[in-house]
Amino acid sequence: MKLATLPNGTPDGRLHIVSRDHARCTPAGAALTLQAALDEWGKLEALLAAEYTALNAGGGRPFDPAGAMAPLPRAWQWLDGSAYDSHGALMQRVFNLPPIDTGGRPLMYQGVSDRFYGPCDDVRLPSEEDGIDFEGEFGIITDAVPMGARPAQALGHIRLIVQINDWSLRKLAPIEMKTGFGWIQAKPACSMAPVAVTPDELGQCWRDARVDLPLCVAWNGALFGAASGYAMSAGFDELVAHAAYSRDLVAGTVIGSGTVSNDNYREVGSSCIAERRAIEMIDLGQPETGFMRFGDRVRMEARLPDGTPLFGATDQKVVKA
Amino acid sequence: MKLATLPNGTPDGRLHIVSRDHARCTPAGAALTLQAALDEWGKLEALLAAEYTALNAGGGRPFDPAGAMAPLPRAWQWLDGSAYDSHGALMQRVFNLPPIDTGGRPLMYQGVSDRFYGPCDDVRLPSEEDGIDFEGEFGIITDAVPMGARPAQALGHIRLIVQINDWSLRKLAPIEMKTGFGWIQAKPACSMAPVAVTPDELGQCWRDARVDLPLCVAWNGALFGAASGYAMSAGFDELVAHAAYSRDLVAGTVIGSGTVSNDNYREVGSSCIAERRAIEMIDLGQPETGFMRFGDRVRMEARLPDGTPLFGATDQKVVKA
Repeated sequence: MKLATLPNGTPDGRLHIVSRDHARCTPAGAALTLQAALDEWGKLEALLAAEYTALNAGGGRPFDPAGAMAPLPRAWQWLDGSAYDSHGALMQRVFNLPPIDTGGRPLMYQGVSDRFYGPCDDVRLPSEEDGIDFEGEFGIITDAVPMGARPAQALGHIRLIVQINDWSLRKLAPIEMKTGFGWIQAKPACSMAPVAVTPDELGQCWRDARVDLPLCVAWNGALFGAASGYAMSAGFDELVAHAAYSRDLVAGTVIGSGTVSNDNYREVGSSCIAERRAIEMIDLGQPETGFMRFGDRVRMEARLPDGTPLFGATDQKVVKA
Repeated sequence: MKLATLPNGTPDGRLHIVSRDHARCTPAGAALTLQAALDEWGKLEALLAAEYTALNAGGGRPFDPAGAMAPLPRAWQWLDGSAYDSHGALMQRVFNLPPIDTGGRPLMYQGVSDRFYGPCDDVRLPSEEDGIDFEGEFGIITDAVPMGARPAQALGHIRLIVQINDWSLRKLAPIEMKTGFGWIQAKPACSMAPVAVTPDELGQCWRDARVDLPLCVAWNGALFGAASGYAMSAGFDELVAHAAYSRDLVAGTVIGSGTVSNDNYREVGSSCIAERRAIEMIDLGQPETGFMRFGDRVRMEARLPDGTPLFGATDQKVVKA
């Protein structure tokens, strides 16, 4: 099943069913918003799936992903992991920080969730001097998860998969990180690709609670990276269980993978600028690639191996706030 | 103006006006929920104030604070400062961490906001082994704050003041803090005292964007601390501006002071157990006070100097999830 949210003048927009080929869409009959669908997923999933089947058979109207909001335009909770070890190793290098003592636990921070930018919204930021960077990620959305859920139980609460750009301000990140409190200023609102999909849409590419697909990232039209999402050291099932240790997870909790990154980063490239700078520090002794400038664009998209669109693309420009 | 939320079967409850003496209440006519009031505060404030004036003159029904929800039972954003230097110094001692390099900036983390416990709700937690602790705090609630707001502008967006218990799991806190990512498992949902008040209700005790009142904390009926809220190294105006550097703050953003703490902690006591343990480490060489056990209660209340109730009290029991 594929779902998108189109603007209707409200903060939560209007939930739509999207055809598998992304050509057509129709307003969802079973729920007005994605949050409402997630609040009663067990009851509404079959109804939404039937609408999806009918839409794939025909009907609906043209789907314009560029006009979509984020599938979940605001969420009660956004928790972002950092599950790619090669990303962590490179970030320690670029930030000049000691290795993180994780104690074998997943890394995760809580971020701003009251707004997710739509896939083609301009992204307003205060200053180029802050080191504007993108972070290509995959994410999942749960329905309600009870406190104490273990990974096997958590897996069943993963209802949707999404593609995220976790905007980051790199000059501020290490300053905030050193406090131990996580990030506030360094982590502005994120963006979501237009289509949220149920795990079955990924077929064999949803494997071990990971997205086994490359995330293609292009900065100002030039390919920047196409790392695979599979290389997570902890799967989304483990991330959900980690988050649910001492809290019930509200329906509509979004959990991110962290910046997609692979050990063979010299071949596949990177999903954020900071990683490339770290590689340059290793190879050249200093970073050479600058961060984003106002007016720059970044495009991200993961497709199925046969080219079928999956989440659609984010394609955004950064502008001065 | 004094506002409370009473249960009506919905997650956001029903907004009520509360009389100054907390004896009576009446459903708010201008807005159904506190979130709705905050969404249009500029338009609705005068209407709510008129209802408050009328209620203080008479009418309404008895107000039962023990049956109230949190004034804002869920929020789109909860950001907690740590603005009391004596708390920070003691926590470094008890956690055996190096001094935090803040660079002169306020400390702040983003916490779970989809649920604030009501003032007398039982608090469900997974294990006594995690070091269950309370943290008495003051907090503010804003309407919409534009990105880039400076402290003077931010001050005008502080619409309500609240009293918070920021539950903490101390065995997990330093483990998560060392990652730099902030806290997930160590920071379960918080609690709010039943009444949110406009700053004018504090009179001269709202001073320099700080709450100049002692927060009385009692653990299992024994006074534990009564530290003054005034000693913040950064006022709430500065905390709001810090939070708004690279994000618009959504209406209904809750920002906490951090654990209320004073330099003369030996005289006034503490607002959390971890501080007392740190003082014991200094004075006795080791901590002697244990953390909370299931079945323990903690009560917190700040009143005006003449004894007038202000936020009401939280009075809660911790129970096994």
